[in-house]
Amino acid sequence: MPAELSQPAAVQPELLRAFASALPVAEGTEPGLGGALRQTLANPGSLVRAQLVYDMSLAFGLAPGSASRLAVAIEYFHTASVVFDDLPCMDDATRRRGAPCIHRSHGEAAAILAALALVSRAYALIWGALAGLDSETQLSAGACVEECLGVAGLLNGQSQDLHHACRVGPRPSPRRIAMGKTVSLIRLSLVLPALVGGAKTREIALLRRLAVFWGLGYQTIDDLKDVLLRPEQTGKNSARDALLNRPNVALDMGTPRALQSLDRLIHLGDSALDRLLQSLPSLAFLTRLGDRLRDEACRLRVAGLSHS
Amino acid sequence: MPAELSQPAAVQPELLRAFASALPVAEGTEPGLGGALRQTLANPGSLVRAQLVYDMSLAFGLAPGSASRLAVAIEYFHTASVVFDDLPCMDDATRRRGAPCIHRSHGEAAAILAALALVSRAYALIWGALAGLDSETQLSAGACVEECLGVAGLLNGQSQDLHHACRVGPRPSPRRIAMGKTVSLIRLSLVLPALVGGAKTREIALLRRLAVFWGLGYQTIDDLKDVLLRPEQTGKNSARDALLNRPNVALDMGTPRALQSLDRLIHLGDSALDRLLQSLPSLAFLTRLGDRLRDEACRLRVAGLSHS
Repeated sequence: MPAELSQPAAVQPELLRAFASALPVAEGTEPGLGGALRQTLANPGSLVRAQLVYDMSLAFGLAPGSASRLAVAIEYFHTASVVFDDLPCMDDATRRRGAPCIHRSHGEAAAILAALALVSRAYALIWGALAGLDSETQLSAGACVEECLGVAGLLNGQSQDLHHACRVGPRPSPRRIAMGKTVSLIRLSLVLPALVGGAKTREIALLRRLAVFWGLGYQTIDDLKDVLLRPEQTGKNSARDALLNRPNVALDMGTPRALQSLDRLIHLGDSALDRLLQSLPSLAFLTRLGDRLRDEACRLRVAGLSHS
Repeated sequence: MPAELSQPAAVQPELLRAFASALPVAEGTEPGLGGALRQTLANPGSLVRAQLVYDMSLAFGLAPGSASRLAVAIEYFHTASVVFDDLPCMDDATRRRGAPCIHRSHGEAAAILAALALVSRAYALIWGALAGLDSETQLSAGACVEECLGVAGLLNGQSQDLHHACRVGPRPSPRRIAMGKTVSLIRLSLVLPALVGGAKTREIALLRRLAVFWGLGYQTIDDLKDVLLRPEQTGKNSARDALLNRPNVALDMGTPRALQSLDRLIHLGDSALDRLLQSLPSLAFLTRLGDRLRDEACRLRVAGLSHS
């Protein structure tokens, strides 16, 4: 399963409101679909991607309205992806964000349709943020969305994740799979606002590097949590990867090496960020994300000690 | 299930090629997802929506490249919707377009991910056709896409269709449900190219009326086929609506009244089209669609006679 990130220090209340209200569920909505959507919108998860996109957008000079649209759009994409992932034919999960999964509350069909409604709304929100920009910016932003979410990005990663157990012959490593299933959305969160805000080619390249280190870092944390923590500590099912024979960095290389590798990813992320801040000091808020990775790594190191 | 339309007289070979090639499946694509996509792209169905969008786009002055992008995009949306509809948690179909359903060949997860890949590509294609247009046109086109595909359009219709049997209290009529599940995509096919091509408000209103009459007409035909024809005549499962307790105009009002109602819809469509052609004679090709509805109605009338 892709990484579900923990709550950042301070999600702006406007983002919580925007997440809940940017997809109005009209009265005439069929009750199954309406119920699935209302439950989804009432459980926003960490909103760490939304906050990241919002902060990135403001740093690149976007108006608050556009920043909010892009932020909620990417969070809706992420939320849709977890609703799909939790389905019986994928991870067959029962709990998510401390509540029953959408398909357990409202049935699989309603869950699928609700996830598609989030996707439809997300594209409309991005459209709203891009309308009227020059053609070149619109095309590069559109290509970034497709690269991250389409068959070469998130969807391929998710498919590799699911079919890992039954793959015949050499299998892609958990790291390689995480490039699709987790790095993709972090890359979208970092790069899309920068493209819309007219970032330079070199800055985009550094943001792409940062997305790799942080995306792999977050996936390593998620895999370690699956191995080390209990459901009441994570709000979702634990020990699923071993049960379902899914790719998991910690199961693949062992907890101690996974923790070492996490430290290295954090260090590489710090280096990429340092170079980025030399030309874009307005991105200083990103150091908080590096700090959060460090905090998570410490928590997991402690959990690993009590687990071994 | 939404209406699957029969092959039009002459689908342009370029559209068949564009449908097959507009979503490149790279070598590194996970084999389950890749297989599901290749099967989907090799079975294009009738392409009647693609042909309609293409002809509408050219009539409204779009370049052939943009016309093809819009045409394939809307056909990909339609194809994704039938892949979802056929899933066990929805219509639980086994055959589609004369072949096993995607989820029967490649599993449910691969089918869902392939459908999402079609959706992702469809948005990218629309984006490509709209980039660089003025902000107002982009926003109205985006709003049209969302109105037709989102929670107020196709998704609500599909949800009403699925949850019809278990609905407590007064249920929406099969006609009302068809407004979401079938009219939506016909409206998108007629209205989106017109909006992109700068149609007048009155013309858009007439196209919306036409979409209602033709969409309801096509759904009536599909419902009659489900009741009257055998699988070898339709290429998919028959008599599913009675089995699954799904809304079906012919089951609801009986075959004779459904045939009468179809005649009336065809007549209303003719009237709307006549008014439209007064200001837009370049849309004369649309009379072919009215003729096709008439042909289908005659075939079903004959089938009804041999059935009763």
